[in-house]
Amino acid sequence: MCQLLGMNCNVPTDICFSFEGFAARGGKTDDHRDGWGIAFFEGKGCRLFLDAKPSIASPIADLVRCFPIHTKHAIAHIRKATQGEISLENCHPFRREMWGKYWVFAHNGDLRDFHPQDLEFYQPVGNTDSEKAFCLILDKLRASFPHSKPPIEKFYLVLSEITSFIAEKGTFNYLLSDGEHFFAHCSTKLSYIVRQAPFAAAHLIDEDLTVDFNELTTPSDRVAIIATTPLTDNEVWTTIQPGELLAFQDGLPMSYR
Amino acid sequence: MCQLLGMNCNVPTDICFSFEGFAARGGKTDDHRDGWGIAFFEGKGCRLFLDAKPSIASPIADLVRCFPIHTKHAIAHIRKATQGEISLENCHPFRREMWGKYWVFAHNGDLRDFHPQDLEFYQPVGNTDSEKAFCLILDKLRASFPHSKPPIEKFYLVLSEITSFIAEKGTFNYLLSDGEHFFAHCSTKLSYIVRQAPFAAAHLIDEDLTVDFNELTTPSDRVAIIATTPLTDNEVWTTIQPGELLAFQDGLPMSYR
Repeated sequence: MCQLLGMNCNVPTDICFSFEGFAARGGKTDDHRDGWGIAFFEGKGCRLFLDAKPSIASPIADLVRCFPIHTKHAIAHIRKATQGEISLENCHPFRREMWGKYWVFAHNGDLRDFHPQDLEFYQPVGNTDSEKAFCLILDKLRASFPHSKPPIEKFYLVLSEITSFIAEKGTFNYLLSDGEHFFAHCSTKLSYIVRQAPFAAAHLIDEDLTVDFNELTTPSDRVAIIATTPLTDNEVWTTIQPGELLAFQDGLPMSYR
Repeated sequence: MCQLLGMNCNVPTDICFSFEGFAARGGKTDDHRDGWGIAFFEGKGCRLFLDAKPSIASPIADLVRCFPIHTKHAIAHIRKATQGEISLENCHPFRREMWGKYWVFAHNGDLRDFHPQDLEFYQPVGNTDSEKAFCLILDKLRASFPHSKPPIEKFYLVLSEITSFIAEKGTFNYLLSDGEHFFAHCSTKLSYIVRQAPFAAAHLIDEDLTVDFNELTTPSDRVAIIATTPLTDNEVWTTIQPGELLAFQDGLPMSYR
């Protein structure tokens, strides 16, 4: 299995604090040593850092920890391989272009006997169940809406259908974003917290590190952090229910079901 | 205009020495300050580092300079904007997936009145002429070979045709790779050098730095470096002729015309 970390905000924010705790799980406080990755949207652009090394031993992870990249949408992943060897092409997040936008996807779980046929537009490069699922999601969305991204309610409906179909094959927790909307699907385990005024101090579970967000924010800031398991031990995280697909916007979870 | 740097080798090699001189042109020895990027293939996987900052002021460029990533195919670019604002989505190289492989593209030049219509599979995310050209190249290749990559001779023929068509619109020097083949097209300015045994010392033009490749290589190594203008002042670089499309393999230039 793997672990997911996502961030969705109403103003560009750096993910350094959360990534510090999350990256520790890549070989220090947990055993997700088989690669890691993080994607940051900056407007329509998207940065993607990937490494098949454990996140605690990766110079690229050091850069991400120390160099604050401000973004409204970030998706990170640390891998413990279940399907597919340990290699760069099997590191999440995966990225494709659809409708002139970049789409980024990371998965936690395991899909058994999952071999989607007749993928028309998108083919996996590696050999994980996760990348196959991502390609199938995009293929179905593109077949449903050939030319451009539809209104969010229509998009959500088709995404829910494909998600339910794939979730029947196994464990399918995922994060998906195009830099405009941010989707989080819980199959077995996914939590989130929304930080907004009045801000307080937060203390990491995986590192002895406290940040007082009151000193770093303005009163109108709102930041949602989504993670496989809570990253802090002095805040109340909300458990996403199995089968629930949330669409985060400006740091708030929405459901269009 | 922009500058291109490419590397194609028969064994995984780091690009640190060449990138050192090349990155200096991003604001120190030349004025290509409007962003930069570099892509490295590792097997089927591909790392892409992009930054809208000048390469001489980018912490990510520092990482690339100091952290040797070994690859058989690398493409780098420093940008001086002609079309499209200075932003992450307009930084080269661009990347797309086709036939289950990543394709990476960087362009030096300027295409005027270039607005390809009816792009079926690939849409630009940013607003450069370069990304439009990349999308058109992939679209035509995919329309010609819907299911998988054809033999190199057939591929080269179609790529030549699209390239000639686009080159009529302006200056179109480019580098393109899928981690298996490496293509370099010269429209106005592009040079290469093949380093192989007996190896000697090379001295950068843009930095006072010398590397003795004899100490770093084995006798069977072969490395082609392709760049807009030569990077060293004590080696003989070959000028690629305008209109020439070379396909590098294992550090050797081939033409299938």
